[in-house]
Amino acid sequence: MVPIVSIVGKSGSGKTTLLEKVIRELTRRGYTVGVLKHDAHGFDIDHEGKDSWRHKKAGASTVALSSPEKFAVIKDVLQEWPPERIIQAYLADSDVVITEGYKTSWFPKIEVVRKAHSTKPVCAGSKDLIAFVTDVKLKTKLPLMGLNDYKGVATFIVREIIKKRSTSGTVSLVVDGTPVPLKPFIDDLIREGVTGMIRSLKGCAGAGDIELRIKKK
Amino acid sequence: MVPIVSIVGKSGSGKTTLLEKVIRELTRRGYTVGVLKHDAHGFDIDHEGKDSWRHKKAGASTVALSSPEKFAVIKDVLQEWPPERIIQAYLADSDVVITEGYKTSWFPKIEVVRKAHSTKPVCAGSKDLIAFVTDVKLKTKLPLMGLNDYKGVATFIVREIIKKRSTSGTVSLVVDGTPVPLKPFIDDLIREGVTGMIRSLKGCAGAGDIELRIKKK
Repeated sequence: MVPIVSIVGKSGSGKTTLLEKVIRELTRRGYTVGVLKHDAHGFDIDHEGKDSWRHKKAGASTVALSSPEKFAVIKDVLQEWPPERIIQAYLADSDVVITEGYKTSWFPKIEVVRKAHSTKPVCAGSKDLIAFVTDVKLKTKLPLMGLNDYKGVATFIVREIIKKRSTSGTVSLVVDGTPVPLKPFIDDLIREGVTGMIRSLKGCAGAGDIELRIKKK
Repeated sequence: MVPIVSIVGKSGSGKTTLLEKVIRELTRRGYTVGVLKHDAHGFDIDHEGKDSWRHKKAGASTVALSSPEKFAVIKDVLQEWPPERIIQAYLADSDVVITEGYKTSWFPKIEVVRKAHSTKPVCAGSKDLIAFVTDVKLKTKLPLMGLNDYKGVATFIVREIIKKRSTSGTVSLVVDGTPVPLKPFIDDLIREGVTGMIRSLKGCAGAGDIELRIKKK
């Protein structure tokens, strides 16, 4: 699976601004960055009156737009998709995925704590917490970085997340909507088995990246 | 593959309005509708100043938002993705996908011709054209429906597209970014082979819908 890190912190602590600077810095260093933001209260992305807005409003469950430079998809879900599913389906081609929120997930987390806002971390004690970005002298063994030290945060993400976690896992599997974690041995087995099968198809002898979907009959 | 139909016609002929009414009618009849709009000139979907806009602007190649009701993804591409790839990856769970544009694709097409705008069809003679929606008395053997006859168009789509084309294909395959069409026999072979493999994994004995991605090592 693609390396993931989550930026967490109280609302108003400065997560979005930090994330913005870190994205710019990582992109400048040549990394492809994907971002997944969790919004428990819903969000509004489309412009009222535009075609895609009208089609969504008319009842389309998914609306997609495609142009030579980008595409966009807005999709209704019956219940919230787990972040792993969204990441595997839509962000797996990034060098790193940074999520905002998801403080109860298993993702490694960097917490932003801003004195003017609150001095009490929300993820203190979480075993997934790996660093703080803060102007508070917190009592912790974890690394502390300054609120404006976006270069330091980028370096930390490269060292602790991208380099350490991107070697494993070339196969991602979702069964009936739930991501299935795979051990390296099983990963190899599926990769070899399926790649072999696909390469035997006409025109697919050199198949590298494979996306396969099977719908129940 | 999911059944697909494309609404084509000159710019300003009324494609978006027809599509809006047809989506509403098909949704009312219980069908799940996906829409893919082609925009050769690019599009602008995010709100300036919002978090996702800021993160995209900072260089993120993909930005996703998730809430309990929906999610959205905006993704940069190096070159335009073929519509089949977007449909297989993002819209395959619909009962029908209606595209707007893609007049040079192989998708079955319904053309909108509005007298006040132009009396000359853009897809005349195309073997994929299956009907006209128009106020012009066109000389053709294809069915003609009125500009306001969105119920007739919905019925036509149910009969000619959804019912006729949704029985085939439970497997969709994309290799190195290119969708690979599968004959029914190959479809069965891959479905049985891969489903068997996945069902042997712990906790996956009842696997129905499977999404599998393999990235080249």
